[in-house]
Amino acid sequence: MAGEESARNKQVVLKNHVSAGLPKESDMEIKESSIQLKVPEATKDAILVKNLYLSCDPYMRNRMKKLEGSYVASFQIGSPISGYGVAKVVDSTHPGYKKGDLVWGMTGWEEYTLITAPEVLFKIQHTDVPLTYYTGLLGMAGMTAYAGFYEVCSPKKGEYVYVSAASGAVGQLVGQFAKLLGCYVVGSAGSKEKIDLLKNKFGFDAAFNYKEEPDLDAALKRCFPEGIDIYFENVGGKMLDAVLANMRVHGRIAACGMISQYNNEQLDAVHNLMYIVPKRVRMQGFIVSDFYHLYPKYLETIIPHIKEGKITYVEDKAEGLENAPAALIGLFTGRNVGKQLVVVSHD
Amino acid sequence: MAGEESARNKQVVLKNHVSAGLPKESDMEIKESSIQLKVPEATKDAILVKNLYLSCDPYMRNRMKKLEGSYVASFQIGSPISGYGVAKVVDSTHPGYKKGDLVWGMTGWEEYTLITAPEVLFKIQHTDVPLTYYTGLLGMAGMTAYAGFYEVCSPKKGEYVYVSAASGAVGQLVGQFAKLLGCYVVGSAGSKEKIDLLKNKFGFDAAFNYKEEPDLDAALKRCFPEGIDIYFENVGGKMLDAVLANMRVHGRIAACGMISQYNNEQLDAVHNLMYIVPKRVRMQGFIVSDFYHLYPKYLETIIPHIKEGKITYVEDKAEGLENAPAALIGLFTGRNVGKQLVVVSHD
Repeated sequence: MAGEESARNKQVVLKNHVSAGLPKESDMEIKESSIQLKVPEATKDAILVKNLYLSCDPYMRNRMKKLEGSYVASFQIGSPISGYGVAKVVDSTHPGYKKGDLVWGMTGWEEYTLITAPEVLFKIQHTDVPLTYYTGLLGMAGMTAYAGFYEVCSPKKGEYVYVSAASGAVGQLVGQFAKLLGCYVVGSAGSKEKIDLLKNKFGFDAAFNYKEEPDLDAALKRCFPEGIDIYFENVGGKMLDAVLANMRVHGRIAACGMISQYNNEQLDAVHNLMYIVPKRVRMQGFIVSDFYHLYPKYLETIIPHIKEGKITYVEDKAEGLENAPAALIGLFTGRNVGKQLVVVSHD
Repeated sequence: MAGEESARNKQVVLKNHVSAGLPKESDMEIKESSIQLKVPEATKDAILVKNLYLSCDPYMRNRMKKLEGSYVASFQIGSPISGYGVAKVVDSTHPGYKKGDLVWGMTGWEEYTLITAPEVLFKIQHTDVPLTYYTGLLGMAGMTAYAGFYEVCSPKKGEYVYVSAASGAVGQLVGQFAKLLGCYVVGSAGSKEKIDLLKNKFGFDAAFNYKEEPDLDAALKRCFPEGIDIYFENVGGKMLDAVLANMRVHGRIAACGMISQYNNEQLDAVHNLMYIVPKRVRMQGFIVSDFYHLYPKYLETIIPHIKEGKITYVEDKAEGLENAPAALIGLFTGRNVGKQLVVVSHD
């Protein structure tokens, strides 16, 4: 009875590439097809998963472009888009996976996905924490914050740390890591609600709404009268320019992403790079996949912190694949408060 | 007979600060005074030196501005300007120095200078090499090239290295160091004569005249079809922007100076910083004084290289303090070919 083994497979499909400007919901469409809930017999070492939670991440904006020579591949028109997610194994022809296993890693924006190279997925071992955390705190965003702060920024107790996009999936963690280490931490974000979170929930020493600051340089000088030792860069553009003029000697900038630039046709000008010479600033671009070997060590550190309440995490959950396109686009208008994810199914 | 102990002291004096634009000879003037050729009796631990050779360096442009909060101090109006130079001790009240000692370090642009903190000078021990080399190859420029290349760039054999301002005091050495290590080295400079030097005297693998390249990005793509591992940054501005778009994954940029910017009122825009994220580029500003502890090690390496002819050095000598203002200004128009220095006296 083959019919019993098939299911509806709702998908978020890319309709067209979006080179510049804010993506629209109509650049994607929701399609329904059906799928056999078994790995095809001839397909060795594959798994079929049911997607539970999908992660909305800024780097996905670039995959909506028609890219050449990028470190990420373009989404294919007519196919479901893909991204990090949490999923449950429904069927497996891979000796390392069995039905019921939970994994996180690259999957499709759809209800079920056939994954033919499951070795690159992470198996979820700790289930005594919210499973959604594996889209953020315990997934790619968490590792980004961890590697970016501890490995790239070379932080020291007492240093002055500035985080932009500070209430986002990565920023909220960088700020908390820096506080745990004994740094002075200031964050910026784009709404009163987010500023309140930074100060009252994540324990930042100070925070400001960049949208209400006519002069970013002045805002930074107010928050950091002695200058900035570490800048965790998530936004780029004008903010980066203002930060460059406020770095301290031997300062470090970890360039994690530059979300303000992703929709731009022309990249914003940065004028103040010259400051890195006399200030001996180190600016380091990084991508998280270079650091995944540290993931076990990260889990060892972070799981106890979560259980002891030393680290908190705010998520913004969109319910259902129908709401996934709007959730993704919302990242670029700052609609999300905290880590944006999509709930496809709760089990 | 006090008269016997005094001498004429010709000086290059700053007439006014120069905030933006190319400095003019008339921003400086030659003055004559006289000086007692003895350290005043009440002045302990000082030396009086006769200046032999003075170094013209790009960073001096900033000292011609009225600066606040810079890592270098402004030149004082009405006083002789100062810079690195080679000098001979005429008199000393410092136990570490005696008449006839040769030193290099910060001195005045004049015939004789009283130095009240001679501890920061370097004593010249090796005199079997041209003494003028201590204004460049064996002085600040040499240490800049050495520390910048070996310490900041983390170079590896076989890497693709690009040097701008490549025939200058620092660039010509960086290129030769990179060749000695087994890198592929391309340099740029601003005249045919300089390009010939790069290729035929310093052994660069290729070189181009940036003034004849309508499209710097295309020039770099032609010279580095596989991209740039290491960029030794001496110029800034448009060149830096073009380089950022041509860096390889895990590339390094050592930002030594940005001479193209020093006369600008408005700093040039850099648009391509975003590339440092996917390419994981490390960009590091540095100043040589952080590395002077390596000077003895540098000498140990470089002196044999000079004697064996493995390292060569081209100098551009202006004769006499009268020609010093023009020599200094010439750095910013690219008039100098090789390391620019001023001969005050040959002994």
